[in-house]
Amino acid sequence: MKMSELATKTLHQAPADETAKNAQLLIKAGYINKEMAGVYSFLPLGLIVLNNIMAIIREEMNAIGGQEVLLSGLQNPAPWQASGRWDDTVVDIWFKTKLKGGQEIGLGNTHEEALTSAMINHIQSYKDLPVYVYQLQTKFRNELRAKSGLMRTREFIMKDLYSFCRSEEEHEKFYQHCQDAYTKIFKRVGLGEQTYLTFASGGSFSKFSHEFQTVCEAGEDTIYVSREHGLAVNAEVMNNEVLAELKLDRGELEEAKAAEVGNIFSLGTKYSDAIGLRFSDEHGHTQPVVMGSYGIGPARVMAVITELMADEHGLVWPEAVAPYKYHLIGLGSAEAVVQAEEVYRGLSQAGQGVLFDDRDERAGTKLADADLIGLPVRLVVSDKTKQQIEYKKRSSPQTHLLNLNQLIKGE
Amino acid sequence: MKMSELATKTLHQAPADETAKNAQLLIKAGYINKEMAGVYSFLPLGLIVLNNIMAIIREEMNAIGGQEVLLSGLQNPAPWQASGRWDDTVVDIWFKTKLKGGQEIGLGNTHEEALTSAMINHIQSYKDLPVYVYQLQTKFRNELRAKSGLMRTREFIMKDLYSFCRSEEEHEKFYQHCQDAYTKIFKRVGLGEQTYLTFASGGSFSKFSHEFQTVCEAGEDTIYVSREHGLAVNAEVMNNEVLAELKLDRGELEEAKAAEVGNIFSLGTKYSDAIGLRFSDEHGHTQPVVMGSYGIGPARVMAVITELMADEHGLVWPEAVAPYKYHLIGLGSAEAVVQAEEVYRGLSQAGQGVLFDDRDERAGTKLADADLIGLPVRLVVSDKTKQQIEYKKRSSPQTHLLNLNQLIKGE
Repeated sequence: MKMSELATKTLHQAPADETAKNAQLLIKAGYINKEMAGVYSFLPLGLIVLNNIMAIIREEMNAIGGQEVLLSGLQNPAPWQASGRWDDTVVDIWFKTKLKGGQEIGLGNTHEEALTSAMINHIQSYKDLPVYVYQLQTKFRNELRAKSGLMRTREFIMKDLYSFCRSEEEHEKFYQHCQDAYTKIFKRVGLGEQTYLTFASGGSFSKFSHEFQTVCEAGEDTIYVSREHGLAVNAEVMNNEVLAELKLDRGELEEAKAAEVGNIFSLGTKYSDAIGLRFSDEHGHTQPVVMGSYGIGPARVMAVITELMADEHGLVWPEAVAPYKYHLIGLGSAEAVVQAEEVYRGLSQAGQGVLFDDRDERAGTKLADADLIGLPVRLVVSDKTKQQIEYKKRSSPQTHLLNLNQLIKGE
Repeated sequence: MKMSELATKTLHQAPADETAKNAQLLIKAGYINKEMAGVYSFLPLGLIVLNNIMAIIREEMNAIGGQEVLLSGLQNPAPWQASGRWDDTVVDIWFKTKLKGGQEIGLGNTHEEALTSAMINHIQSYKDLPVYVYQLQTKFRNELRAKSGLMRTREFIMKDLYSFCRSEEEHEKFYQHCQDAYTKIFKRVGLGEQTYLTFASGGSFSKFSHEFQTVCEAGEDTIYVSREHGLAVNAEVMNNEVLAELKLDRGELEEAKAAEVGNIFSLGTKYSDAIGLRFSDEHGHTQPVVMGSYGIGPARVMAVITELMADEHGLVWPEAVAPYKYHLIGLGSAEAVVQAEEVYRGLSQAGQGVLFDDRDERAGTKLADADLIGLPVRLVVSDKTKQQIEYKKRSSPQTHLLNLNQLIKGE
């Protein structure tokens, strides 16, 4: 992509009312646009990052047998009334609206009710189970406050998977598979080291749920990390009884601010009982389906990567999620610009992602924009580099020279 | 995909309140679920079809320089107030909702206002233009009636591209490119023959807009088709003056019901004037940006394909959009079932899409389900076919025998 053709540009400043570091930087670098408090749009570079994160999630969900669906945002009240979650005093983040005829409907803040209801047509027998269904779909949550940028928004895409099993045993097995898949996902997006499997409150059907918490100053949660065991405990369930059960010693735990990037939850038969999702077992007996739910917010992952990795000059993307690998800059004489064009063509033909700053701008502007946009590798072609290319990782001050062939071969 | 593992099954009947042929069939075949009137969810097979249609649209939009974004569903009233389209008496399909603080916000039914507003940060100079920005994003429209299944829904993904140009001339050039891209899209999804470029009413900035209308009994529009010229005129603008201008003779036109599958629209400077999207031209003069909008509803395309191609036995998918190419059935002895497994593995390893009916069901049920689900090619392995495979196109009664190698080689 040539920057002269890119639909966005870097901005001198973020909106005055934007206080979150992640949103400030992403707006300035042209990745997102603020529509209103807690509502952001994704511009071309931002959407590529979001799509890269979602592609990794999708691969890992498919690998554990997930089948993708796309449920509606508009929600029929009926299954929510059955589960007791339609009332605004029970769920305090509803956005509701009305059909022309006056009937109140909701905007989905989660999809246990809708999916459980939809699966009634498709699950009747033990032969129809287990199934694992997921989506990457937009949730709407009427948050009282929205001041953490992309970390807590009123509208966001969520990957929500729901498991439907015949028994607690079958459920536990999948729950573990999904836990392992989540570990892979956070490693692949570049958050592996800072992300801990965290014990959190469970609800009526199990003592604990599990969160994936990334240690991060901007996080809204407090967790207690055991680096030795690679585990953490959410402050909400932290007490002596729990520590004894998890065989953790208070002394080894470090308190840390963290952002919840994923959660996995045993639902038992809460929704299948309420909504009537039952199956006939091998003996012809009717049983409620055992369910679980498993969430990740891809834009929150993007925000957490920004918060953790950005420096005073701008964004710093891990290669797996970066919009392009290379940020190519041509500086100086017409000859250097022609050479930069050749490097752009060569890399593009080799299937490498390149953002090519072909604009008629000062060197200082181009270099500052490269730092702000934060692609993994900056390439500079100038009169000084002669027939070679200056190679610099965004995360390191070191530069070295190489030629196009070496670059394409990955030397 | 093995049918024993597929999250959905075929149903004996669609909901009693579902009157549209497309939705009835898609529900029965397990492609979609009806959430309420005018609101449908996409189940695994249905989402693959939708994604295949969207992938074709995306490719063609990228090919004409489109850059993909993702705007929010929640809409800030400000730019809509500026354009005069916030009022429910002006736009009668709004869904509106409220933030906790009581402020009214909207659910986007289109995105001219939001995108024009977002681009103010990114377009200031003639050097920033032209740009073409599109999304595949969910619209909400509070339709008074919703009785055409997926053809007219209260929530649907729309591909909406918006062009931003320096002049009418530059706009006209892109408008023609997009028109050509649309022709390619409808050809690729299998609607080329029945789809006509149709003159429709233009609005304040141009005499005509252009619709792509697919001749289809279930369509809501009436058009007059000139097969000779490969053009049509929407009934809404059909008069002697227009016919003279288009050099069409009333005698050559056939009246037909049709479904609008796409539209392209010159917006002039209506939104850029209202919202203040201006650029500084080569002479330093401030000019409003010249805009166009270009829509396609992928789920409506899916519905129209269903309406046109399905027969009394079920769905019939063109290969380009089918969830899988092959519907493989093993019938009879244990030996035949083993052979079917081998065919499944062989085709899967060769990268072919196969839905394998490995269920323990009667032959009649399996064959009926294959017709209902409507994949392009049915393959049957049974004791009768010996070591061979019976090959039958869904759209033809003829069968012939071949072996796995021939199948993989496409003979």
